[in-house]
Amino acid sequence: MSTDLTQALAELSALLGARLSATHAERDLHSRSETWFAPAPPDAVAWPETTEEVSAIVKICAAHRLPVVAWGAGTSLEGHALATRGGVCLNMSRMNRVLDVSAEDMLAVVQPGITREELNAELRATGLFFSVDPGANASLGGMAGTRASGTTTVRYGSMRDNVAGLEVVLADGRVIRTGSRAAKSAAGYDLTALMLGSEGTLGIITELTLRLHGQPEAISSAVCAFESLEAAVETVQMTIQMGIPMARIEFVDRTIAQVFNQMNGTHMPEKPHLLIEFHGSEGAVAEDSRRFGEVVAEMGGADFEWATTTEARNRLWKMRHGAYTACLASRPGSMGLVTDVCVPMSRLAEAVEAARDDIAAAGLTGPILGHVGDGNFHAILLLDRDDAEELARAKALAHKLAERALEMGGTITGEHGIGLGKRGLMEAEHGAGWQVMGAIKQALDPLNILNPGKLVPDLPEAAQ
Amino acid sequence: MSTDLTQALAELSALLGARLSATHAERDLHSRSETWFAPAPPDAVAWPETTEEVSAIVKICAAHRLPVVAWGAGTSLEGHALATRGGVCLNMSRMNRVLDVSAEDMLAVVQPGITREELNAELRATGLFFSVDPGANASLGGMAGTRASGTTTVRYGSMRDNVAGLEVVLADGRVIRTGSRAAKSAAGYDLTALMLGSEGTLGIITELTLRLHGQPEAISSAVCAFESLEAAVETVQMTIQMGIPMARIEFVDRTIAQVFNQMNGTHMPEKPHLLIEFHGSEGAVAEDSRRFGEVVAEMGGADFEWATTTEARNRLWKMRHGAYTACLASRPGSMGLVTDVCVPMSRLAEAVEAARDDIAAAGLTGPILGHVGDGNFHAILLLDRDDAEELARAKALAHKLAERALEMGGTITGEHGIGLGKRGLMEAEHGAGWQVMGAIKQALDPLNILNPGKLVPDLPEAAQ
Repeated sequence: MSTDLTQALAELSALLGARLSATHAERDLHSRSETWFAPAPPDAVAWPETTEEVSAIVKICAAHRLPVVAWGAGTSLEGHALATRGGVCLNMSRMNRVLDVSAEDMLAVVQPGITREELNAELRATGLFFSVDPGANASLGGMAGTRASGTTTVRYGSMRDNVAGLEVVLADGRVIRTGSRAAKSAAGYDLTALMLGSEGTLGIITELTLRLHGQPEAISSAVCAFESLEAAVETVQMTIQMGIPMARIEFVDRTIAQVFNQMNGTHMPEKPHLLIEFHGSEGAVAEDSRRFGEVVAEMGGADFEWATTTEARNRLWKMRHGAYTACLASRPGSMGLVTDVCVPMSRLAEAVEAARDDIAAAGLTGPILGHVGDGNFHAILLLDRDDAEELARAKALAHKLAERALEMGGTITGEHGIGLGKRGLMEAEHGAGWQVMGAIKQALDPLNILNPGKLVPDLPEAAQ
Repeated sequence: MSTDLTQALAELSALLGARLSATHAERDLHSRSETWFAPAPPDAVAWPETTEEVSAIVKICAAHRLPVVAWGAGTSLEGHALATRGGVCLNMSRMNRVLDVSAEDMLAVVQPGITREELNAELRATGLFFSVDPGANASLGGMAGTRASGTTTVRYGSMRDNVAGLEVVLADGRVIRTGSRAAKSAAGYDLTALMLGSEGTLGIITELTLRLHGQPEAISSAVCAFESLEAAVETVQMTIQMGIPMARIEFVDRTIAQVFNQMNGTHMPEKPHLLIEFHGSEGAVAEDSRRFGEVVAEMGGADFEWATTTEARNRLWKMRHGAYTACLASRPGSMGLVTDVCVPMSRLAEAVEAARDDIAAAGLTGPILGHVGDGNFHAILLLDRDDAEELARAKALAHKLAERALEMGGTITGEHGIGLGKRGLMEAEHGAGWQVMGAIKQALDPLNILNPGKLVPDLPEAAQ
């Protein structure tokens, strides 16, 4: 351990007491992700409880040029929270309170460590809910950091649309508040939007003001099989163009249907499916369901099954959210590499078909599912943990899908973010814009202590 | 004229020929705003036709450290486009084409000089429309620069929600593209959002990819009088909480109703009014109108009048959009200073009442109207052009309203932006965040040539 590190840890220890740990066990626990990245342990783990503590920690780290990496629920699929350059891992789980809920303003103020399921459990009695649902029970701080979205984005938007303001600790320990409690503002640069998706490289989020939505009076869900991927995707396009307001519209391919049947004892036909949900008044939901049924019939969809009870609905979405784990379990001992491109709706069927063909050509197993209402789909590439060649093939495939998405006018990541996994594609997506991101990073974190090695270009050696 | 300026204009003239003018007439035309700011002529006016020309102009200006200020339709109410430090005014009116419309992706690619009315005229046959409607027939580039919103934001969002991507010329002439044609992305810093609302201080927008919406199958508009401001505002709050999806909900006070009657020959009761519109299917609009009618009845609203024909609807919104001009005309020879605070919905009635009382106490005339569904309202302070003391009183009042909005958790500007008028309030709203904006500005425009003197703090003298 360098003298500087020893000194920094001594100062942090004086600040945090038992809430700083440099044990092998804790470092190891905070070194791993849910996917294929090599473990990268931090030098120590800190559990701050207040914004002031986060600020003090960052100041100590800045003084000793030690990296600071925030850790939410550890559900990232791109290695965002891995301390590849060591430093201090900020485990935010003790900052997990709901500080305020205003039903009149439809806003909640929360700390970053709370997870979305915890938040919605606390909101249940208010008649309101927080809509962003990435599947995993992620922390709100992590969801903000990666600009997360998910199954309900087609109706309620992503984190970009549902965060009204933030409190952020900057790289020098200063604390700023962004945004406001108003519905909109034209007061200068949109620092809230800049922080959302910055993946801990510009600041540590210590508080979020979130927009809430009214729990819908009525909900109606359905599962419906199609003969082909094309028919399923065309159904989605037609539904959007008719202006039928879907709350969720998810695609799963025939392999995922098989996995669901195996894992959940369901009897879905082994075909591509759409999983759909409508939210609204009783009358509106009935009308939306009827009109959607007509589109499905026209597109040759079959085996239309409505989940009418709350239990049936919950089972449906639990199954959908468990798809990643279920796919991994279907091939024991495997690990996953999950692609995440998002393309314009007009290119979606083509992109999914090409992905399916590429996966087959690469000799890989990769069931496909996605948030088709947004043009965002995932291939879950199932890999042998010990087969480096297979991992290399999967990476090359993921790269190819991302490049095709760019050719189609899309993006390399709809919702999982950049982290370690997609940094090599940033220049291809943004061109000189990636250098602009680097210039902003350098202006706000000149010592490069906030989640270094992620998202932005490496600074020139001289500046480091 | 300095040697440097002479040299720069010679180079610009060689580039643009007759599309560069330094005549007194053109400089004067581009020196004025629609409100109270002193004229500030640029040294010259340029009419670029391509992104490459904009880039070349910026490079020349950078080499000679000459300010560059973009000019759209000149409808700013905060002096955004005034060349207070001289330099080159970029009149974008020759870059006003629609480059592409995709009905499948519901996107349009346009140049920044097109106005929203021109764009919607071009879109009419497609079944789609561009929703953001600030009232004035502003240019899309200007609307992006100020993060504009307006009457339809309560349903369709502001520029923040309706711009998918931008092409931007940076301060050194580099051209970047932000965003994509996909519905969402998690690929790094949200440069689109950063540019929206940056008021020409970070780059010159040369192309916009806009999100379109389907023209609604049915539209229903109504005007409805209330005994009190409180009853009108409570009606809005209740409607939002019931989840009735309003496409527009506008408040006008009794003075504006009087002005409308005078100017348009209408017979509105001289009371506060709500102007409302619903968009959707025939069935949905009928249902929304019925439920809204129930809320209005409960709140004692009266004189409910539905505008059933397209002509009646157009007349209604033309009247609303003409309110600023009509108010000015109601007091011949006056000029306006328009306030623009936005507060959380729970504080709206209180904020409007307090504003009304403050206006009376200050001895000023200031009818109030606003986008009440967003908590955003304007007082149109009518001022004698030659009365400096009255202007000072109006500025002090506007300052007071802004400070109260901040105390209520709101913002100093819902949609008009900062420009010259509200720069003095930026620190009050953003604290250290304003310095962060300054750091970003300095990183991206170190010579401070892009719309200098606006929005961000002045750089330290040494750095200038």
